Amino acid sequence: MGKDKDKFSRNERVVGITKILTENPNTVVNLSTFTELFNAAKSTVSEDIVIVREILEELSMGKVETVAGAAGGVKFINNISDNEKDGLLEELCNALREKWRVIPGNFLYITDIAYNPQLIHNAAVALASKFSHLEVDYVVTIETKGIPLAYEVAKQLGIQLVTVRHDTKFTEGTTVSINYVSGSSNRLQTMSLSRKSMNKNSKCIFIDDFMRAGGTAKGIKELLNEFDSELLGCGFLIDNVEMKDKLVKDYVSLVEFSGIDEEGMAIVSPAKDA
Amino acid sequence: MGKDKDKFSRNERVVGITKILTENPNTVVNLSTFTELFNAAKSTVSEDIVIVREILEELSMGKVETVAGAAGGVKFINNISDNEKDGLLEELCNALREKWRVIPGNFLYITDIAYNPQLIHNAAVALASKFSHLEVDYVVTIETKGIPLAYEVAKQLGIQLVTVRHDTKFTEGTTVSINYVSGSSNRLQTMSLSRKSMNKNSKCIFIDDFMRAGGTAKGIKELLNEFDSELLGCGFLIDNVEMKDKLVKDYVSLVEFSGIDEEGMAIVSPAKDA
Repeated sequence: MGKDKDKFSRNERVVGITKILTENPNTVVNLSTFTELFNAAKSTVSEDIVIVREILEELSMGKVETVAGAAGGVKFINNISDNEKDGLLEELCNALREKWRVIPGNFLYITDIAYNPQLIHNAAVALASKFSHLEVDYVVTIETKGIPLAYEVAKQLGIQLVTVRHDTKFTEGTTVSINYVSGSSNRLQTMSLSRKSMNKNSKCIFIDDFMRAGGTAKGIKELLNEFDSELLGCGFLIDNVEMKDKLVKDYVSLVEFSGIDEEGMAIVSPAKDA
Repeated sequence: MGKDKDKFSRNERVVGITKILTENPNTVVNLSTFTELFNAAKSTVSEDIVIVREILEELSMGKVETVAGAAGGVKFINNISDNEKDGLLEELCNALREKWRVIPGNFLYITDIAYNPQLIHNAAVALASKFSHLEVDYVVTIETKGIPLAYEVAKQLGIQLVTVRHDTKFTEGTTVSINYVSGSSNRLQTMSLSRKSMNKNSKCIFIDDFMRAGGTAKGIKELLNEFDSELLGCGFLIDNVEMKDKLVKDYVSLVEFSGIDEEGMAIVSPAKDA
C-alpha cells in the first residue's frame, strides 16, 4: 500500500523506531522488527538507532541500550528529565494543597490524582527509574487506588503486574491469604493472592499510592514469603511522613505529606529522594 | 549541556516529536512545546510534523491532527494496524485456550492477562479506537480486574478514569451507592461512587475486562443517572456470548467466549466487531 517499502527515508524510519521503542519500554526489540518493517539492511537500521539513541539521551527522554546475543536487539529505558520531574512534583503538590481535598477525619481525597493517566504516567516513569537497575520479575500492588500507578510502573519496567486483593474471588482459583495490621486503621485486615499469579523464587517490588506506617508493605513482604519470593523495594506516590516509625525501611516516594495545617490545607513537598 | 540547542537536525527533531506525541495520545500539544524544545521556527516544526504525520499514517501507527485556535496545536490519535490487531487477537485467544485456566465452576482465570501491560496496552489501543470519534469526558470502570484496561483506554483517549467501588471508603468523601443484580452471581450487589469523582452532565464510556449478562453495565448506567451523566457505550476485553439476553446493547468487545469444550478448553474467537 502506498509507496514501495524500500523508499523509506531515514527521517521516516527514525519516527517508526521511536514510536515502537516508546511503546515497549524495557523490552528487547529485535532488529529484525525494524529491518522487516522498513525493508532495510541491518546496518541501515543500526545507524537509525544511533540517531534515536543520541537524541533521546540529549533530551533526557531515555536511553537505548544494545542487548547482545541470539535474542538480542535494543531496549528502551524511559526517563523523565529533571525539569519535567520538577514540574510534575510541583503540579502534584499544588493539586494536593487544594482545600476541597480535605475530608472529615483529616484524610486527603486523592482518587482523581490516582486515576489521572497523564499524571500517573509521568509519576510512574519517575518511580520506575529508581528500580530499572534491578532485576525485577513482578510489580506487586494491592487493590484499589494504587493499581494504575503500579500498572504503569510495570509497563515501564517491561514486566507483569500482580494485584493482591482484600477478599478471595472464585475467579482466582486457589489463593493464599494472610492477616496483617493496617497502619491507617490499626485493625486486622486480610490480603489474598492467587497461587497462579506468581512463579516461586521471584523478585518483586511493591508500588502503592499512599504510604502510612508501612503495615501493608510489611504484609506484602510476608505474603511474598508464602510464594518463596522476595521484596526488593517499595515505591509510593505519597508518603505520610507524620508516621515516623515505618515498618519497612527500603522505599522511595515522590511527595511527602505531613498533615493538614491550621488553614485546612495539606502540608506537602517533593520527597528528597524523588 | 552538549551541543547548542539550534543545532538539532530534522532527524533529531522528528524523534523528539514522535516520543512526545506517542506519550500524550488524544491530547493537544501546542507547537510552542516543540519550538521551545528545539529552538526552532514554527514553520520548521510544522514541516517536521508533516513528516511524522505521513509516516505514522503509512505505518498505520496513528493519525496526527491539527487543532486550530488559540489553544491549538497537534493531537495524536493512536492506532493499531490490522496486522498487529490480528496478531493481538490470536495471542489473546491462544492464551485463553490454555487448559490450566479453567477453574472449578468452569470459570476462566484471566487475571494474568488483565494485568499484562503489553497485552493490555495493545487491547486498549484497539478498544479506544472504537470511541475516538465521540466526545467522551470519563472512562468509567468497576474494581478490580478491569482497572488496567480502563486506565489505558482513558490514557489513549486523553481523559480521566473513574473507578466505581463495591464498598464505601472513608477516603472517598460523600458517595452515592446503588444496588444492582450482577449477571454472573445473580445476587444483589452494591456499587458506590464518590460525589467528587465526576462533574454533572458528563458523557462516559464503561470499560471492563469481562462481559456476562451486562448487569454491571446496566448498574453503571443507573449510577451515572445519579450524576446526571450519560453512558455512551461500553467496551470489554472478553464477551461471554453464551449469555444471549444482554441487559445493554451498545457495546464492543475484542474476544468472544462461549464456554468450555469437552476437552476442558475454552472456546474463544476474535469478536466480529473487534
